[in-house]
Amino acid sequence: MSIFELIRASGLGRLGKLITSNGTVYTPELMPVFNPNKPLISTKELIKEFKIKILITNAYIIYRTPHLKSEAEKGIHNLIEFPGVIMLDSGAYQAWMYKKDLSVSNKEIIEFQDLLRPNIATILDIFTDTDDYETAKKGVIETINRAKECIKVRDQDNQDILWAAPIQGGKFLDLIEYSAKKLSKLDFKYHPLGTLAPSLMNYEYRGVLDAIATAKLNMNSSRPLHAFSIGHPMFFSLSVLFGSDLFDSSSYALYAQNNRYITTFRTFNLNDLVEFPCTCPICSKYTPEELKRMDKENRIKNLAKHNLYVCLGEMKIIREAIRRDKLWELVQSRVRAHPNLIDAYFYNLMKYHKKIEIYDTLTKRTAFFYSGLDSLLRPEVLRHKKWLIDRYSPPSASILIILIDIIFRTLESKYFKVWTEKIKGIIYNINNLSEKDIHFCILSPIFGIIPIEIAESYPFSQYLYPNIFFESLSDHVSSIFKDYIKAFHTNYKKIIIFYPELTLKKKEIYKYPEIKLDTLPDDILKENKVYIVKNIEDIEKLLT
Amino acid sequence: MSIFELIRASGLGRLGKLITSNGTVYTPELMPVFNPNKPLISTKELIKEFKIKILITNAYIIYRTPHLKSEAEKGIHNLIEFPGVIMLDSGAYQAWMYKKDLSVSNKEIIEFQDLLRPNIATILDIFTDTDDYETAKKGVIETINRAKECIKVRDQDNQDILWAAPIQGGKFLDLIEYSAKKLSKLDFKYHPLGTLAPSLMNYEYRGVLDAIATAKLNMNSSRPLHAFSIGHPMFFSLSVLFGSDLFDSSSYALYAQNNRYITTFRTFNLNDLVEFPCTCPICSKYTPEELKRMDKENRIKNLAKHNLYVCLGEMKIIREAIRRDKLWELVQSRVRAHPNLIDAYFYNLMKYHKKIEIYDTLTKRTAFFYSGLDSLLRPEVLRHKKWLIDRYSPPSASILIILIDIIFRTLESKYFKVWTEKIKGIIYNINNLSEKDIHFCILSPIFGIIPIEIAESYPFSQYLYPNIFFESLSDHVSSIFKDYIKAFHTNYKKIIIFYPELTLKKKEIYKYPEIKLDTLPDDILKENKVYIVKNIEDIEKLLT
Repeated sequence: MSIFELIRASGLGRLGKLITSNGTVYTPELMPVFNPNKPLISTKELIKEFKIKILITNAYIIYRTPHLKSEAEKGIHNLIEFPGVIMLDSGAYQAWMYKKDLSVSNKEIIEFQDLLRPNIATILDIFTDTDDYETAKKGVIETINRAKECIKVRDQDNQDILWAAPIQGGKFLDLIEYSAKKLSKLDFKYHPLGTLAPSLMNYEYRGVLDAIATAKLNMNSSRPLHAFSIGHPMFFSLSVLFGSDLFDSSSYALYAQNNRYITTFRTFNLNDLVEFPCTCPICSKYTPEELKRMDKENRIKNLAKHNLYVCLGEMKIIREAIRRDKLWELVQSRVRAHPNLIDAYFYNLMKYHKKIEIYDTLTKRTAFFYSGLDSLLRPEVLRHKKWLIDRYSPPSASILIILIDIIFRTLESKYFKVWTEKIKGIIYNINNLSEKDIHFCILSPIFGIIPIEIAESYPFSQYLYPNIFFESLSDHVSSIFKDYIKAFHTNYKKIIIFYPELTLKKKEIYKYPEIKLDTLPDDILKENKVYIVKNIEDIEKLLT
Repeated sequence: MSIFELIRASGLGRLGKLITSNGTVYTPELMPVFNPNKPLISTKELIKEFKIKILITNAYIIYRTPHLKSEAEKGIHNLIEFPGVIMLDSGAYQAWMYKKDLSVSNKEIIEFQDLLRPNIATILDIFTDTDDYETAKKGVIETINRAKECIKVRDQDNQDILWAAPIQGGKFLDLIEYSAKKLSKLDFKYHPLGTLAPSLMNYEYRGVLDAIATAKLNMNSSRPLHAFSIGHPMFFSLSVLFGSDLFDSSSYALYAQNNRYITTFRTFNLNDLVEFPCTCPICSKYTPEELKRMDKENRIKNLAKHNLYVCLGEMKIIREAIRRDKLWELVQSRVRAHPNLIDAYFYNLMKYHKKIEIYDTLTKRTAFFYSGLDSLLRPEVLRHKKWLIDRYSPPSASILIILIDIIFRTLESKYFKVWTEKIKGIIYNINNLSEKDIHFCILSPIFGIIPIEIAESYPFSQYLYPNIFFESLSDHVSSIFKDYIKAFHTNYKKIIIFYPELTLKKKEIYKYPEIKLDTLPDDILKENKVYIVKNIEDIEKLLT
């Protein structure tokens, strides 16, 4: 039985269904960390106020807490009074965080989880937070061995538990790759990615994203990927785009204990706030002043609730974005909250764009929005460039006319439609020339060359860009133009690019990308058949 | 008495206090439109659930509704049972919207408002929605005449009413300028900007922003500017940056009546939503499915409440951003929600950046975040460029050493600090040379040249950019470098630019802006004193 169903993909991210015996959860989703010893927000509140369907708690903490351990056979759902989906972590993080020996073996914690009967259980993996490659490698190999041990010792009759084997490797991407590949071959249903916490603490989003993409691209992609420790909503959408399906977070509570207030764009200290930049039930009810004056316990609880509302709200925003094929647009906007996020996005987009293109949904439900040069590495643009060269063949026509594409929002039709009609009128009056002799293409600042035959299909029929750019797109457009001409120049006797400069309003500000003819190979230039013309009369002359 | 106090400025936007006899309101703020005939949300709910301190309602609607008109002398606060700040609009919008003659004169509506005693009252202005310049001009002049009439006929004893005279002009910026200047000379306390609705309906954000900036830059800036009709939170932060202090909106209710659900990034039809991308009390309580199944009245009411939560929430976000000097960062992120917003932002930034620089706060409390080439037109960058040429003089030192600035997040100190120390070590061992002979400057991708004397002051001590750019900043940096060298080259015998290429990690991706020496004037190049060096040994050779 498949426990994870893909609904829709964007980049390496996806909307999915995680199916368990305690209910189905839509992913991406965040599991709040529930501390069974001292819950800041009770399971009752989590259910009633937050409508939580999934949470994560810790088998090791239960194991070492006598009054909880003694009731383990009740099962974890009864123990913490939560009927939804429960994941158990194993204690690897605690071993790292408190630098101590857990005095519990992998086998013991596996058997203990079999007793607790969660929906998702985790082996006792090794945290690989080290600068030493060999030490990290040992951790990875030991984690794989423990995964193998799990397969042997876990309760074979308890098929309801999804066993999770964490991918490790720390800062060594080849180890993450190795770990992901090896674990994918073992009988597990679920893979967390471990050891992200140290980089997250240093705001090294670039490396965290790189680790996520490496895990995702090398693991069995029918299984969910859970990015352990990512608990800040600033970073959720980006992490999803690069492959995370699930998240867990104790940040909402830990931050609250330090008076810290989370938003999707940054963290505040409560004391620095005059107004709450948020609409959640807590922030709609109280002012910062009121929260500051509360007793500590209530203040922390309300802060934790706000933090959790924001984290879960961002997950709703992300899922809704993937449903509408708008995850890229969400990320384009979210990363502008901090240069470190832009850095992480640009770096990893540069590194992985070709691989991402393979996973991304082909036909989207909503328009492509350009937001800057980063948008040129999006799958739609790369796919079109590849398709033009590998799969396209132009219709038989001896003359190619390339028209620039400008979106005039006040006109009903796009610019190129007006001009193709005008040029068709000219052709009608020329002897020995018919519409069939002309092949129209659109020159697009984003997609370069769009043959008119496909102009009504996705994404060419629905993409938007500002009518003003700061950046130059000339190199980008010229490069696609060059590739097109190199591939198809023998098809055409004449190639005419129509650049009606004078008709551009506000041309002093609007700079349409320029086609640089000098990038064409010499042999094509020598044929003297490529023309740039600036008014329609010149087209007429060239055609007669 | 001043009725408007400036607290903090960002761009043309500002955090302010609007002081009235029914309380003080922090601006920017949105006034929900309250329809006294059929309120969708009662004043009780507005106060209790939304903590509304200001609203706008319509004198004309009350005037033409017999049961309301008959109770006018109770005063508007008693009539609608709202003790906070109340603004009255006059009916100009209704005359345009329903294309009808109001059968009420300016004088009558002024006298009626004197009877109603709101905190802010509005003359009966003329909506200038026309393509015909002369018609628009007539409207502007008639509005000015009506403002003059108001001064004569309004109740001179009622000093508590702040009278508002709307700036008009429609799509003609010179008329907006004329209107703003003329009205500023009259005895009014408050200026709305009218006739934005037609452009807003066509999503012509570029023109709307241009109109706002024109009004703002030509009016008496001690008075608040109220952008009539802007009711979508996608556009609030941008409108504030270009000068709006107040907003009014019936959108929250009108959208709800059409099943439309507002967010800060777009509008949805309720039927298209599977989950609510929001954390407000309504969206935390209900699912879209539950709302769809409600009876119409309740559904519309809940949608209206959600819409209002989002609109008011965005105002809280904006005010908090101005308080922390982060409005620019908010806008940089918000505009990426739609290419039309990017277009409006870039176009008007290009057009107004020099004027904006004059108004913007000099020393900010938080770091400058680079988000793209648009950030180079921000006041901090322009101000520094001007200051370098107009006000700066370098210390007496015969050698200029320019060090590139890279933010290594893993290092405690910035890159240039490490290298200045190393170079000082070299100088120490060279005869006839002391630290005083060297002037260090930092080469910054954003600020160009930063003399080391000011490196610890704002914004040079706190600005962040991604370590990877898609766009080239070489032209930008070279241009500031050229200006610096042209101004000060006679101060120096040697100018050394230290570009330690090999030490850059990931240099295949990270492209540090290149200084183009060939942009320097010939006479400076002929002096042969500008060197680009790539390792520290070359600096040593040049110094000895």
